[in-house]
Amino acid sequence: MTGGEATERLRALGYSRADAEVLVSHFEDAERRGKAGHGLARVAWLETLDLDPGACPTRALAEEGFERWDGSGALGYLVLDAIVRATLEQPPSHARVAVAERCFPTGVLGYWVRRLAEGGLVAILTATSQRRLPHPSGGPPLTGTNPLAIAIPSSDGQPLVADVSMGAVTHGDVLAGRAAAEELVPFGGAQAHKAFALAVGLESLVGALAGPEHGAVLVVARPEHDPVPALRALARDRRLPGDEP
Amino acid sequence: MTGGEATERLRALGYSRADAEVLVSHFEDAERRGKAGHGLARVAWLETLDLDPGACPTRALAEEGFERWDGSGALGYLVLDAIVRATLEQPPSHARVAVAERCFPTGVLGYWVRRLAEGGLVAILTATSQRRLPHPSGGPPLTGTNPLAIAIPSSDGQPLVADVSMGAVTHGDVLAGRAAAEELVPFGGAQAHKAFALAVGLESLVGALAGPEHGAVLVVARPEHDPVPALRALARDRRLPGDEP
Repeated sequence: MTGGEATERLRALGYSRADAEVLVSHFEDAERRGKAGHGLARVAWLETLDLDPGACPTRALAEEGFERWDGSGALGYLVLDAIVRATLEQPPSHARVAVAERCFPTGVLGYWVRRLAEGGLVAILTATSQRRLPHPSGGPPLTGTNPLAIAIPSSDGQPLVADVSMGAVTHGDVLAGRAAAEELVPFGGAQAHKAFALAVGLESLVGALAGPEHGAVLVVARPEHDPVPALRALARDRRLPGDEP
Repeated sequence: MTGGEATERLRALGYSRADAEVLVSHFEDAERRGKAGHGLARVAWLETLDLDPGACPTRALAEEGFERWDGSGALGYLVLDAIVRATLEQPPSHARVAVAERCFPTGVLGYWVRRLAEGGLVAILTATSQRRLPHPSGGPPLTGTNPLAIAIPSSDGQPLVADVSMGAVTHGDVLAGRAAAEELVPFGGAQAHKAFALAVGLESLVGALAGPEHGAVLVVARPEHDPVPALRALARDRRLPGDEP
């Protein structure tokens, strides 16, 4: 599927041209970075859902240091896009926490924080999804794979972007047959308790702030220092998180 | 060493009774939770350092949603204690980011966020230390083990506390001969790139906000929901992060 075809199919679902372009830009970026599970194939998946293409995310509370958003039935991608745009338009003097209730699916979290870092802001973002990871000792799924994404602007023009899911494989890998269902556990092998703890901590963080439906929590701040160029110099030719593949 | 002996030795270093009690309370809690490397043995280590026992952390900026602190030569433990106390005395209406410059050593991060959660606040904390973790492909140390601690209050009285270092072993393990120096790498084995990405992301986050010396970044928020009891019910008898050993 090309980006143009994806746009037309999203338009046929009822999405505005602007919203379709937001979605396709995200999917194309995911493809380009080798995350095909979050790429254009998602259009066919969206076609199977019961969507409200006219839904608009709403900002229920806006203070200097805190915002609360409600997805209001819009796709999580569009909720995060709205938050990113609003934040870049009116960044905090120092820092701001934004909570997004009813925000799903959220796609590649690194995509959203990278845009914030390209706009000059430090950003850290997490989001929940279906419970799929069991306790390292087994049992039922207790937590989503709950990625944590961190992006830091850099004066060399290339932000550092860490984007880590707590699962050893993705649900998309399982659906595509690239991994067995029993491989969808916290990453880390003998130290899977660490990724499990992070996943459960992030799950509960979002749950405590955004409520029982899938949500997202974003923290943005203005950087006061520029640590990435020195880190790159120290790392020499080794790839740092978020570098082009 | 008993807590009483530790208090006397810290008093002999010049610490006030109140500061000595803050330090010993932290060390004793670390012992109780099986983190002896952060326990009372640290007193002997402190005796080898060039310390200013009269130094006091200062709050350079205090807004509803943002605070900037400077360790001002005080031990990181005392800086975090001051921030925790100030935050519990005057919690944010919604959320607050606190940046601590010159804040080292910080000990067991779970200890500080647990106190905030016991006071009713969601808390997420990270802190930097010496670069000890290399890139998964080898080379020089690029990042600290940079733990991430997340604590969520619970109506059942037992907060959820995740506290995860990105190292496969601790520096203390290496010093104590419990692990070899080459085992001090990002955790995760074949997926060590994930823990490395988190460590580098947190390193750069703290660096961008707190500057080149070791520092800490804390986010606190008032919970709007109470997700932990339902998670405990789902987990049944399985141990969740921060449960008593």
